[in-house]
Amino acid sequence: MERILLQLQYNGANFQGFQIQNEGRTVQYELERILKRMHKQFVRIHPSSRTDKGVHALMQYVHFDTPLSIPESKWQHAFNSALPDDIYITHVTKISEHFHSRYDCIGKAYRYKVYVAQHRNVMHTGQITHIKTKLDVQKMNTAAQHFLGTHDFTSFCSAKTEIENKERTLYHFEVTETREGYDFYVIGSGFLYNMVRIMVQYLIDVGTGQKDGDDIPEIIKAQDRTKAGKTAPAEGLYLEKIYLDTETLKQDIPQGTSIILKNQKHTMNGTQL
Amino acid sequence: MERILLQLQYNGANFQGFQIQNEGRTVQYELERILKRMHKQFVRIHPSSRTDKGVHALMQYVHFDTPLSIPESKWQHAFNSALPDDIYITHVTKISEHFHSRYDCIGKAYRYKVYVAQHRNVMHTGQITHIKTKLDVQKMNTAAQHFLGTHDFTSFCSAKTEIENKERTLYHFEVTETREGYDFYVIGSGFLYNMVRIMVQYLIDVGTGQKDGDDIPEIIKAQDRTKAGKTAPAEGLYLEKIYLDTETLKQDIPQGTSIILKNQKHTMNGTQL
Repeated sequence: MERILLQLQYNGANFQGFQIQNEGRTVQYELERILKRMHKQFVRIHPSSRTDKGVHALMQYVHFDTPLSIPESKWQHAFNSALPDDIYITHVTKISEHFHSRYDCIGKAYRYKVYVAQHRNVMHTGQITHIKTKLDVQKMNTAAQHFLGTHDFTSFCSAKTEIENKERTLYHFEVTETREGYDFYVIGSGFLYNMVRIMVQYLIDVGTGQKDGDDIPEIIKAQDRTKAGKTAPAEGLYLEKIYLDTETLKQDIPQGTSIILKNQKHTMNGTQL
Repeated sequence: MERILLQLQYNGANFQGFQIQNEGRTVQYELERILKRMHKQFVRIHPSSRTDKGVHALMQYVHFDTPLSIPESKWQHAFNSALPDDIYITHVTKISEHFHSRYDCIGKAYRYKVYVAQHRNVMHTGQITHIKTKLDVQKMNTAAQHFLGTHDFTSFCSAKTEIENKERTLYHFEVTETREGYDFYVIGSGFLYNMVRIMVQYLIDVGTGQKDGDDIPEIIKAQDRTKAGKTAPAEGLYLEKIYLDTETLKQDIPQGTSIILKNQKHTMNGTQL
């Protein structure tokens, strides 16, 4: 058996999320459908992250085990010629059987995109979130720094989540002005269900003056989802980067920040991705 | 009864085209569904153009007749608050009962967008057409000029069309380099089924050197669809402008070009749009 690691991208607009559902298109279904056809039997894939309905991924990893002995480039071609236009395999690596996409993921970066316009732009539907008024970037950036560090993020996590340990570490959070609006960029050890979207909506509300950034520490402390306000729509959210090794993560976060490796069970033994 | 003219935009990616089909979402269905709810009976809408499956519109017009007396801004609000995110009403005008969206349309402008990249970009899926190699813009522009003027465009029209008169006049055709690829921009009196997409694919093939632009006059003369080659995908095509009056059309085409008003049955009587 060989363990294969796929690096992939997808446009989430027309998916019911990553994970297989009873109804509707999912990324997992599209990948497993191709594997089943190649293997004449079901092959399970394991992702680094299970993105929600409507969320995009510019970098996602999945691994699977196969008895087939196929060169990496052939795997890539086999997938890309069979996949629909909204999924693309960017890289294929044969990897140690001790590696696991989820357990060896030590960090993730998400970007959230909004555009400012009086009227909504139909070409941005499903890709960028529409807001009507300009935001105060400096206020939002000041507020965002309150999220950094290790906290129990229960207040900024969907009440529907089943995960028990709600402690996560955020390394970097920055709001920048773009041509049409704003980007919210956050790097962390991991994120809870809806966590990025709840934090972003809070920052947007800080940017319009409806919320106070200095309330964030207290809201975190409350461990109460009702304190944090609404959830920003899925359409503006991009899983932009997944960190499988500490070196790459270190390069992308402020110098001297210590990295939390709690979730890491296995190492990649120096495998180049 | 009042005649209402709606100016609208839509993202065609998730529509089976403008016109109602037996299955799948259509723009017409979404608009008539709202009118039916407001009127408690069916109200027919008439578009300026029936765009195909997957084609976008940055400007489209539809008109309908109503016994309801509602201010223009209220019509706009009623539609926009009920429409899905991929349709947007940009303007509403009460218009003469002699006006007809289709018969009073004297010209249209289409843009076709392609991007050049080794690998396809999942975020462009449904919005911009992917090609792998750079194109010769000068060759394409020289070739495009052969389409200008009044011709029978049978060779550049889907064989499935039911329209008998295949004569159309093109006023302007330009290929420009963009940040990620190329835009094809064409203004004409009207366009046959698939006509822009067949012309664009021909020009792309000229741009790669696979086809000769100087063959275009002969291909037009042949009045034979099989001579013109393939049809470019729908996803890159945008209905960008609809001309309801000669003044606006004159401003957008080279000075001195005479405008063909064959299809115009009624005039707008100076109504401001």
